[in-house]
Formats: sequence, structure tokens, C-alpha cells
Amino acid sequence: MRPSPLGAQGKMTKPTNQQITVEQSGAFVETFSLAATSRGPLDGLRFAVKDLIDVAGHNTGCGNPSWRDTHPRAELHAVCVEQVLAAGGECVGKTITDEMAFSLIGENHFYGTPLNPAAPDRVPGGSSSGSASAVACGLADFALGSDTGGSVRVPASNCGLWGLRPSHGAISVAGVMPFAPSFDTIGFFANDSEILERVGSVLLARDPISEPTQPTIHLLDEAFSLIDSEVRVALDPVLDELRVLFPGRLRKASLDAWCGVAAGGGLEPWVDSFYTLQFAEIQSSLSAWIADARPTFGPATAASFELARSLDRRTIGAAARRREAYDHCLAAAMGPGDLLCIPTVPAPAPLKATNAQNRKGHYYRRALSLTSIAGLARLPQVSLPLAVTAASPVGLSLIAARGQDMHLLATVRKIAAALVSSRSG
Amino acid sequence: MRPSPLGAQGKMTKPTNQQITVEQSGAFVETFSLAATSRGPLDGLRFAVKDLIDVAGHNTGCGNPSWRDTHPRAELHAVCVEQVLAAGGECVGKTITDEMAFSLIGENHFYGTPLNPAAPDRVPGGSSSGSASAVACGLADFALGSDTGGSVRVPASNCGLWGLRPSHGAISVAGVMPFAPSFDTIGFFANDSEILERVGSVLLARDPISEPTQPTIHLLDEAFSLIDSEVRVALDPVLDELRVLFPGRLRKASLDAWCGVAAGGGLEPWVDSFYTLQFAEIQSSLSAWIADARPTFGPATAASFELARSLDRRTIGAAARRREAYDHCLAAAMGPGDLLCIPTVPAPAPLKATNAQNRKGHYYRRALSLTSIAGLARLPQVSLPLAVTAASPVGLSLIAARGQDMHLLATVRKIAAALVSSRSG
Repeated sequence: MRPSPLGAQGKMTKPTNQQITVEQSGAFVETFSLAATSRGPLDGLRFAVKDLIDVAGHNTGCGNPSWRDTHPRAELHAVCVEQVLAAGGECVGKTITDEMAFSLIGENHFYGTPLNPAAPDRVPGGSSSGSASAVACGLADFALGSDTGGSVRVPASNCGLWGLRPSHGAISVAGVMPFAPSFDTIGFFANDSEILERVGSVLLARDPISEPTQPTIHLLDEAFSLIDSEVRVALDPVLDELRVLFPGRLRKASLDAWCGVAAGGGLEPWVDSFYTLQFAEIQSSLSAWIADARPTFGPATAASFELARSLDRRTIGAAARRREAYDHCLAAAMGPGDLLCIPTVPAPAPLKATNAQNRKGHYYRRALSLTSIAGLARLPQVSLPLAVTAASPVGLSLIAARGQDMHLLATVRKIAAALVSSRSG
Repeated sequence: MRPSPLGAQGKMTKPTNQQITVEQSGAFVETFSLAATSRGPLDGLRFAVKDLIDVAGHNTGCGNPSWRDTHPRAELHAVCVEQVLAAGGECVGKTITDEMAFSLIGENHFYGTPLNPAAPDRVPGGSSSGSASAVACGLADFALGSDTGGSVRVPASNCGLWGLRPSHGAISVAGVMPFAPSFDTIGFFANDSEILERVGSVLLARDPISEPTQPTIHLLDEAFSLIDSEVRVALDPVLDELRVLFPGRLRKASLDAWCGVAAGGGLEPWVDSFYTLQFAEIQSSLSAWIADARPTFGPATAASFELARSLDRRTIGAAARRREAYDHCLAAAMGPGDLLCIPTVPAPAPLKATNAQNRKGHYYRRALSLTSIAGLARLPQVSLPLAVTAASPVGLSLIAARGQDMHLLATVRKIAAALVSSRSG
């Protein structure tokens, strides 16, 4: 069994990958040192920035050489970078993104595949591949990524990191490449739940919550029913730990039961709605540039754009109607103490170079089925690195009601602290 | 007294401006006819699109010739245009926007000032100036605009139209120029509250609400205390009508009392927070293009960008912290039936060519003080064309809790129907 993010004896220890070099990680587009602009809660912490997010004086490449060469250098930092620098963070570089943010895998045709140190023969996950790798390799204390369809949550799961996708609209995307704006968010990774919460406090511009409400944790049937058995076997003991930590507060739940006729058919209509709306928005955001600049894409990205182009745009309205029904259903069902619990991913990290990116592949659609829940309903989600399979780490996710990001982060910190104690006891 | 949008005898009649030509209106960048792509609730309705929003096959000019000339033609419609076309709407053209969306006035140095038919010597308001003018002149049944800092609400008020700024994130901005993304929204105008609601149902992808909850209407002290007396005199009788319509359900309220120490000092810290965050985001969105393309701006827009450039970006964090405190305070205070009531604007529409755009001018800062409430707290707001001064129409606004857009539109329709009856009775 591979080294667990919780340590070989189940202890919650930081990975000791500090010996991995920048070159070995393959995580960075470029490295540099950019000092904090003032002091704050992130004093002394090093952070990396996904190369979809502007850092002043650097070209934002978005994982594609044609994009880099047809866009001017960033004059100013993205607002999220500015917030982190002013809170004491020191920026150590820009990290590789999947091309145009268009994948959950983490293999970039032009820039390579950042190392997943927890499973070196497997992909790190994408599209915030380099940010996850930099943190997992110990080359940064935290890293900024973006998450449209799962691009923070999936690499957090694959690499054994804590990762947040925030409530939609809660963190500024000014200075970030628009992709599918109604899903685009700025998220981040850390090796440590306490650092995750501190970064959250800065970017969400809210104080940490000292004592979170006792949560009610709803295990979503539709999500657990579509995962591989090895993931289920890895997650079951974690659910048992949560039952001990929150006695009587874990219960089974079902989206179909909660959302009634609006949903139905498990996660199939969720992922269909997500695909339609994401493709529609990507095309509205990028098609003029593509027609004008005639960029060169890697084969997988070219196939993804072809799929997006094939969308019948008259179906946007029906997909939007389903999306809003889901959003309202979950908003009505979830109070501040309610958390949905799902596996972050349906399977261990795919082996490298196995064409897992193929949109028709079983892995990809199941992964998006899981990530589409928070995406469609605009909810915050944390992937917790609490389990490993024989192949790679796998995350367990908690999803909170919209705007309850700080509450979610406090609950996650509490879970991490309790599991350190119980796993070492 | 000028013709009221409610008719000379106080009747709720549609304006009879159908005789105004496209040329006389000065509202359009270009006109064309783009048929609906399928049938739906907007069958037979003509709509116009602000030239900040993509229409396939047309250049999106954003009110500035340098922008138009340095960006490729739109390949596809923005998602919001696609939704409206698929619901039966027929597009009649693209309308003038204030340069780069950067004003509440409606005077474009390059493209002129669209006619405000309700007050021809006065500005239409901006930045969705042409969309408001097109509807007010009877050249479209409704029109799409964008509202970052008030760009739908203010022109709706000046021109005597119904206008919605939706909850932030509720309507897709894919295919719309990013300006200050955490405030950017797609809003729209109509001459008729029933059409406003129908368009809302399509773009918000939700069914209309047949019988809205009885509202509680909170008259915000801080807002009413900063308006000109002629606006107060015009709005007072409308408040009396609302008291008759909703007996016992209008009450005085105060942001300072609701939000405690977090606010304080009236709307000054609100508008300061708004300025800081909006300028920070505008600079992150546009500074690379400005440095690269060296665009020519009109004098007022150049001054606005200079002001944005002067921002100390280390203050972003503190402004974001105030913004989130306001957002959470209002979210905690407002249930689905609670509506904030404020004047849309502090004064009648300014006379044309009076440099009202000057950022230090008294009008501008007071207008932004009012519009910053919904902007900072991400709330939906409708401006209702229920009053006129000797100079121009002035709107009364209702602001609902986040996500209660359809409830707000239903309440507005109910108010409109009741006032037709009582004013004609």
C-alpha cells in the first residue's frame, strides 16, 4: 500500500516530500519569488498559482501555447492573488493547467504531466494539476486553482490533499480566464486542514468559525452507488470514524427523494445538464478566439472542443431549467448544519497515458456526475484526504449549503483534528 | 409636467412613442432582424441587445472603437441571447452602451447619447443607455442590458421603465465582456411588468409565481435620507399607495440598525467598499488589454480609468471583508417575504452634457450609494416606474433576498396591476 496522507500508522502527518525538486515535480510553468505586500494570517506561507490566473508581469498561458502567444502579458495580479499577497503569502511560481482548463485528468499535451507523488504512475488529476502537484510535492504550502467542473476537487482527491471549491461567486474571478462563468470558481489546495481554513478566511473575507454547529451528514445514495468497490472499501472505515465522531448524525439520503420529479434517474440528468450548460458557456466564451486565432490544440482538447461545438444550443433553456430546479431543491433542503457526503471520485486516479480523458469513457462521466452536484447547485465542497486504495489516495467530500463555506471549513478542521487523535490512539 | 409612464391621468398605459424612428432614438449601434429559433413564452416580442453582449456574426463593440477593432467578431450568441431567441424572441439590433460599461450617465463620446423620450433634454442613464432608450421609444418590447454598478436600474429609473438587476450569478454572463465579475449581471428592461416577469422566467429558468407571499416592505432610512426633495415629493404618494395595498406591512428600517458595527455611518462605507472592489476588478479584467492595445478613450472614460488605476490594491482585502459582512447581514435579516424599498436614484435624470459623470460630483456618488446595496449583497432589485418629477421619471426600487428573483417579479406585477386599478378608479 502506498503512503497514506494520514501517515503509515494512520497518523495525520504532513507528507514528507520536501526532497522532491521543482524539476522532478514537473508542476511549474515557471518559478520565481514574489514577496508578500503586507503581513497577515498567511505570513511565511509559500503559494503557487495555476497558470489560468494572472500574476503581474507574467504571461497567462492557460496551458496552451497559442493562447499564451495571442494574449498580452498580465499587467496586474488577479484579485485573488492580490488578496493572498496582502495577507502575508509569498508566491513561488505559476503551475501547469490542463489545456484551456478542459479536463479532469492532468495530462497536458504541451507541458507534460505534473507528478502525483502519492501515486507516481498515475495522473494528478486536473485541470489544476500543477497546483495540486506543487503542494503534494512540498514545493508550496498552498496553491490557487480554479474549479469549473471538478478541477480542484479531483486533483485534491488523487494527490491526497485538502481542497475547496467555494460557493459560486464567493471568491473573485477577476483576472482569471473566463471558461464557463456560471460554474467558474477559484479554489485552493493545502496539505493541512488548518492552512486550508486560513486561506479560506482570507479569500472568502470572513472570520473563521471557532465552534461549528453540530452537523447532520447526509450520505447520498446516488453518489455512493456509482463508485468502484475499491473506493467503497477505502471509504467505509472513514464513514465509521465519522459515525463515532458525530453519533447519530449520519443518515442516508437520496437526491431523487429530496428533489422528486425535478430530478429522477439518479445523477444522469444532473451530468447531462452540466455538460449542456458547460459546453454552451465554453463556446460562448472561447469560440470567437478560436475562429480568429486558429490555435493548435492537443488531440484530447481538440476532441473536447469538437464535442462542445456539436451541442444543439436550443437545448440550453431546458438544461438551465433543470439546473435551477436542482439548485432550489438543495437550497430548500439544506440548512446551515446540513452537509452532503459523497465520494470525491468514482475510482482511483487513472494510470497515466491511458486516454482516460476520452469523454465517452466510463471514468470521466462518473467523475463529472459526482462533481456536477455542487457545480449545478453552486455549493461549496471540500475533498478530505482520508482514504487510500492500493492505487492512489481517494477523497471523501462534504458539500455545504451556499454561503456556508467558513462553516464547512471549520467542520473539516474539526474532523481532521479528531481523526489525528483517534487514528493515533 | 412631462408625460408620466403611468399616463397623464395616472393611468397605467403603455407609452405611445411608436412614432419615434430608430434614427431619432439614437439607441442603436446597428439594427437587423434575427428570428426566434423556436417558439415559447416570448413569441412575437422584439428585443434589443446591449453592445457588450455577443450576437453571432456581429462585432461586440463595448462602446469603444478600439475595443471593437482589436477583438474578433462574435462566432456565437451569448448564452442569454440564445435563451431568449429559443423562447420566441426576435432580435432587432445591438444598442449603444456607455464606453466599456463605465458610467451611469448614458453619454457616449463616440456614439452619442440615446434619446430619453420621457425627458428629451436629459440623459437616459447608463451604461445600458441604448437598451433603455430602445424600449422607451417603443422600438423593442424588451431589451437586454448588463448591470455592474447600476447600469440597468438607473436608466430604467430615468426613462420610466421596469428594470431588473437579478441575483448575482443567476443569469449566465457567458459571451459578455467581463468588467467587474463579482458584480456583473445580465438585467433587462420592459415597458410592462408582465413582460418583465415573462423575460425573467426565461432567463432565470424558473416558473412564474402565481400568488406571491404577502411581503414585508422595509423602507431604508439611509437611502431615503440622501435623495433630493423633489424625488421625495414624487415618491411619497407611491409609498402611500403601497400602504393601502399592503396594510400594516410597510415599516421603517435602517442598515445601521440591521448590520450594527459592521456598517455604521450610513451608506458611506458601502459605496467606499463598492468603489474599491469594482475598481480592483475592472483593473484586473482590463489593464492588460489597455497596456497592449493603447485604446483611445473619451475624456470621461479616461478619467474613470485613471481613478481606477490610482487604487491602492492592498486595500482590497479590507473592502472584501466589509462586503461579505454586508452580504451576510442582509442574508440573515431577510426572509423570502422581506423586501427592501429604496429610491432607485437620488435625483432626476441629469441634464445632458453637464459633466454629471464627474466621479467627484454629488449626483454620481449618491447614485452609487443607492445601487451599491444590492450590488455588494448580490441581491435582485427591480426599479418600478411609479413616479415622475417635473424633470424626469424616477423609479422606486424593491430589493429581495438572494435567489428570490421570481418572487420579486411576481410582487412587482401585483403592485403594477393594483396601481392600474386604483389610479384609474
